[in-house]
Amino acid sequence: MPIYTAPTRDTRFVVNELLDLASYGNLPGFENATPDMIDTVINEAGRFCAEVLAPLNLVGDQHGCVRHEDGSVTTPPGFKEAYQQFRESGWGTVAQPEEFGGQGFPHVLGFVLEEFMGTSNQAFAMYPGLGAGAVAALIAAGSEEQKATYLPKMVAGEWLGTMNLTEPHCGTDLGMIRTKAEPNGDGSYAITGTKIFISAGEHDLTENIIHLVLAKTPGAPDSTKGISLFVVPKFLVNADGSLGERNGVSCGSIEHKMGIHGNSTCVLNYDGAKGWLVGDENKGLAAMFVMMNAARLGVGIQGLAQAEVAYQNAVAYALDRRQGRALTGPADPEAKADPIFVHPDVRRMLMDAKVFTEGMRALCLWGALLVDLSHKAPTAEEREQADALIGLMTPVMKGYGTDKGYDVATNMQQVFGGHGYIEEWGMSQFVRDARIAMIYEGTNGVQAMDLCGRKLGSKGGAAIQAFFKMVDDEIAEAKGNEQLADLATRLEKALGEQKAATMWFMQNAMANPNNLGAGAHNYMHLMGIVVLGLMWLRMSKVALEKLAGEPEDKAFYEAKLVSAKYYAERFLPDAGALRRKLEAGSEHMMALGADAFQTAA
Amino acid sequence: MPIYTAPTRDTRFVVNELLDLASYGNLPGFENATPDMIDTVINEAGRFCAEVLAPLNLVGDQHGCVRHEDGSVTTPPGFKEAYQQFRESGWGTVAQPEEFGGQGFPHVLGFVLEEFMGTSNQAFAMYPGLGAGAVAALIAAGSEEQKATYLPKMVAGEWLGTMNLTEPHCGTDLGMIRTKAEPNGDGSYAITGTKIFISAGEHDLTENIIHLVLAKTPGAPDSTKGISLFVVPKFLVNADGSLGERNGVSCGSIEHKMGIHGNSTCVLNYDGAKGWLVGDENKGLAAMFVMMNAARLGVGIQGLAQAEVAYQNAVAYALDRRQGRALTGPADPEAKADPIFVHPDVRRMLMDAKVFTEGMRALCLWGALLVDLSHKAPTAEEREQADALIGLMTPVMKGYGTDKGYDVATNMQQVFGGHGYIEEWGMSQFVRDARIAMIYEGTNGVQAMDLCGRKLGSKGGAAIQAFFKMVDDEIAEAKGNEQLADLATRLEKALGEQKAATMWFMQNAMANPNNLGAGAHNYMHLMGIVVLGLMWLRMSKVALEKLAGEPEDKAFYEAKLVSAKYYAERFLPDAGALRRKLEAGSEHMMALGADAFQTAA
Repeated sequence: MPIYTAPTRDTRFVVNELLDLASYGNLPGFENATPDMIDTVINEAGRFCAEVLAPLNLVGDQHGCVRHEDGSVTTPPGFKEAYQQFRESGWGTVAQPEEFGGQGFPHVLGFVLEEFMGTSNQAFAMYPGLGAGAVAALIAAGSEEQKATYLPKMVAGEWLGTMNLTEPHCGTDLGMIRTKAEPNGDGSYAITGTKIFISAGEHDLTENIIHLVLAKTPGAPDSTKGISLFVVPKFLVNADGSLGERNGVSCGSIEHKMGIHGNSTCVLNYDGAKGWLVGDENKGLAAMFVMMNAARLGVGIQGLAQAEVAYQNAVAYALDRRQGRALTGPADPEAKADPIFVHPDVRRMLMDAKVFTEGMRALCLWGALLVDLSHKAPTAEEREQADALIGLMTPVMKGYGTDKGYDVATNMQQVFGGHGYIEEWGMSQFVRDARIAMIYEGTNGVQAMDLCGRKLGSKGGAAIQAFFKMVDDEIAEAKGNEQLADLATRLEKALGEQKAATMWFMQNAMANPNNLGAGAHNYMHLMGIVVLGLMWLRMSKVALEKLAGEPEDKAFYEAKLVSAKYYAERFLPDAGALRRKLEAGSEHMMALGADAFQTAA
Repeated sequence: MPIYTAPTRDTRFVVNELLDLASYGNLPGFENATPDMIDTVINEAGRFCAEVLAPLNLVGDQHGCVRHEDGSVTTPPGFKEAYQQFRESGWGTVAQPEEFGGQGFPHVLGFVLEEFMGTSNQAFAMYPGLGAGAVAALIAAGSEEQKATYLPKMVAGEWLGTMNLTEPHCGTDLGMIRTKAEPNGDGSYAITGTKIFISAGEHDLTENIIHLVLAKTPGAPDSTKGISLFVVPKFLVNADGSLGERNGVSCGSIEHKMGIHGNSTCVLNYDGAKGWLVGDENKGLAAMFVMMNAARLGVGIQGLAQAEVAYQNAVAYALDRRQGRALTGPADPEAKADPIFVHPDVRRMLMDAKVFTEGMRALCLWGALLVDLSHKAPTAEEREQADALIGLMTPVMKGYGTDKGYDVATNMQQVFGGHGYIEEWGMSQFVRDARIAMIYEGTNGVQAMDLCGRKLGSKGGAAIQAFFKMVDDEIAEAKGNEQLADLATRLEKALGEQKAATMWFMQNAMANPNNLGAGAHNYMHLMGIVVLGLMWLRMSKVALEKLAGEPEDKAFYEAKLVSAKYYAERFLPDAGALRRKLEAGSEHMMALGADAFQTAA
């Protein structure tokens, strides 16, 4: 049975010591986030996830969801009870606005909870995760009536929600959707079409499910400019808030997937279902992107989450399993063999995992703070800066974070040798669950193009230039500190590769946009490496400051310094290789026609 | 339903044009391998695998194997009939010695078959694959009587075989095995113990299964020096060759694995089973390594195989699926969207797959030729040279080949977007099946240590120095050809990184052997990149020669030249990064103790 302990110590380090969340007490919503309250939320969230959700993770994988003949879906054993506990404990309301019954805490604490939930049980976490996405879209684009009808129940977790974008023939290219919305003449629309890959599309956790659905009104432009967003409840809601008749949306089947078996991924058939326009006609994509951006950050956290739980299990196994002897001589001469923890190749994989997960945690929670600041910073300029920065960071966190998360989960499975391949040990599940994060909410190729094709150039490159300046400034400051100078110099070199790659794009993408597309994936990884490097520089700085005060848990801070050095030696060197690949451009990548790829007999 | 076409054109290119197999007609066993016969074997093997084995691949994954109460195991629907066809067509005998009923063809052709079988149905291919391993061990170490008793039936495929090494508490560290072999006094031994992860351990394909089992005789040294090898038939064999009583070995359970569901991975319980010593007492490991080395090459081919089938399916999907528009403007303006083949990030993944699979195919078949030469080259010196080179190459082919094979399979799944995550499409299976190849027959960490700890330094580094000289010579020659000079220069740079890394090991591993262990994985990948680069240089040379003759299929050879350039631009740059990581040594990798890895609440 896999283990899980919420990494509350490291989380408190990031929230309290690295981000110093309490220092933002002047911002609305932050005033309640006192140091005591922060620690309580972190510790209690960790306890809930470890005790209630983690034990159901393997169960969910093995049982999966079951669709019955009437179209209803049963979630895995224990999920319903766990969801009830989740709802009653108020965990779904942590970062929701107080106006609709939420606790109004900063997103930083919401992200902490998202990590712990994703780590302990990703398939479970997706149910409230999708609900929160639907809440975000309704807050952003819903009418006052819609907010009043849906939000209190949704924030309270009494109802959950979904996002309906994908259709059998289109996912990335939403301009092609065929689902129709015909006006009923009473302000409502009749929604007809088929949606696929709808996570949490049908289940037994809540009495109602509020679907947010992209569809086209009659005569709408045949492109992304003709997409509208509709709210389509599973059960219609009466004026008094009670549930009315069953709406014309049903689950046609659930998919057999590689992983996240505990979440019901549905084909939803809309057969004249009653829906109401959310926001303006033909502006549905913009409203959906409110959900999408939050969802992408959430998926980035999943990259961290699967790496983290796989790492914890690999550490336990490496300390327990004995095979062979340390290269430097027996570490435990009394025993027949040493724990495999002594082998450098095992330690390499564990250290890779350690510096990725800790670095990624710092990145995710800093990202959450940027989300908070983009809404709540005192001045418009600060809000804009934070918004631009998190916009730039979102595809990196999603794309790089989930690519690496999968790599790390795979390596942690490798630590188990043959036992890692056996389902009962749970390592296979972590890899299979991690795999989806590279695909959904926009494949990582889409993330790379979002970064390079949209974010890099927006407002004349203002966001990336601001990012370079920020990193340059921090490097310059760190170089003045003897103990940080080496790390800062190495990071400067990697940043230099990113700057050169950016310049190469500027000089070569206009002439041939394929040069941008050909290097986008490389650029996203290059930036991911630099950003995690920045996190390690910041964490080292804090660790040095703390160590100067002779703290009780000295070892914790010393480990941060060693880990930062390891990161610099073992992750940063890829920056140069990525730049060189990127600078190869698209010529040979795009030179061969379809024939050259087809297997010739 | 996934597709598969055997890449016979590319295989004939490697066998006939790159390796020029027919030119070795003077060697024993090669005389029958005339150009016509070679092409016939390649084409017919391809047809058999595509028509008979490929259609059972997804079936095998979905049905798996079933163990019944009596311990018998049923393979997936269709496997038994396909095995009968396989046996009757004589595919199992291609590279087996004529002495025992084989066809005596070169290993090169045996490896071709292994690729096609692994690509079309890895779980199926493992049944005869394990049988061939057992044959190899009996040929190498069996007594004349054992050979006469077992080999004719095994070579004919009437009986299959297994390798029994792993026990619950040990796999890599075989010195710890506990299975006992007590002399019965009649020349036989009573074998008692539990073996796990026994591929093809029990099944319904053949009437008998010949287990090769590592066990310890009474008083044997408590280390790898006390391991003996035994042959333990499922049914005892009477003097006349007929089957006698059922032996005391039974399948206790079959494992629930991440992949290769169609192969029965068994717990085998030996309860005083009758066995006979193979080779000398306490020399079992050496005999087992005869099987192991062949098996490792076979697993390297599996890395190629899963990448190849995933690639073929991704190409088909990329040409069919339409989403979005080419960055350079609509490629198919009449349609609503372009095939995703036009997108650079999709093409990047396809090109990565193409240059890996074609390069790896060249490497595997060259490796097979080295195996042939190590046995059959005219002079002892040539045989020794070939043996040293294939010894060096084996961990690279296994370790680098399967790491990259998994990466490529994962990327090909990525091409499918959300559909790649749905089991019915088959892409998940390719990834899950590819995953095991990094683990079994020695994890890739073990391969890296075999390469760096054993092969690099053996005979004063003679093998690696010979390798360097060979690559240097080919680079020097290629630099004289204007059309190859750029590729040769880039390869020279990567080779320079490998030489520097080798030197660093020499200078730093004596002082601290952990420096070797810390860099072994990096070195294995670095060498893999160089070796595939060498293959692309060789293939480019042949392509240029062919193009000079104005061949009919000009496009085939031109594609080789483009692919080689892509390889040089997109794979070789990692060599430098790998060297830099390696040169970081073990200090920070090994600095943290167990406490620093354990999650603190």
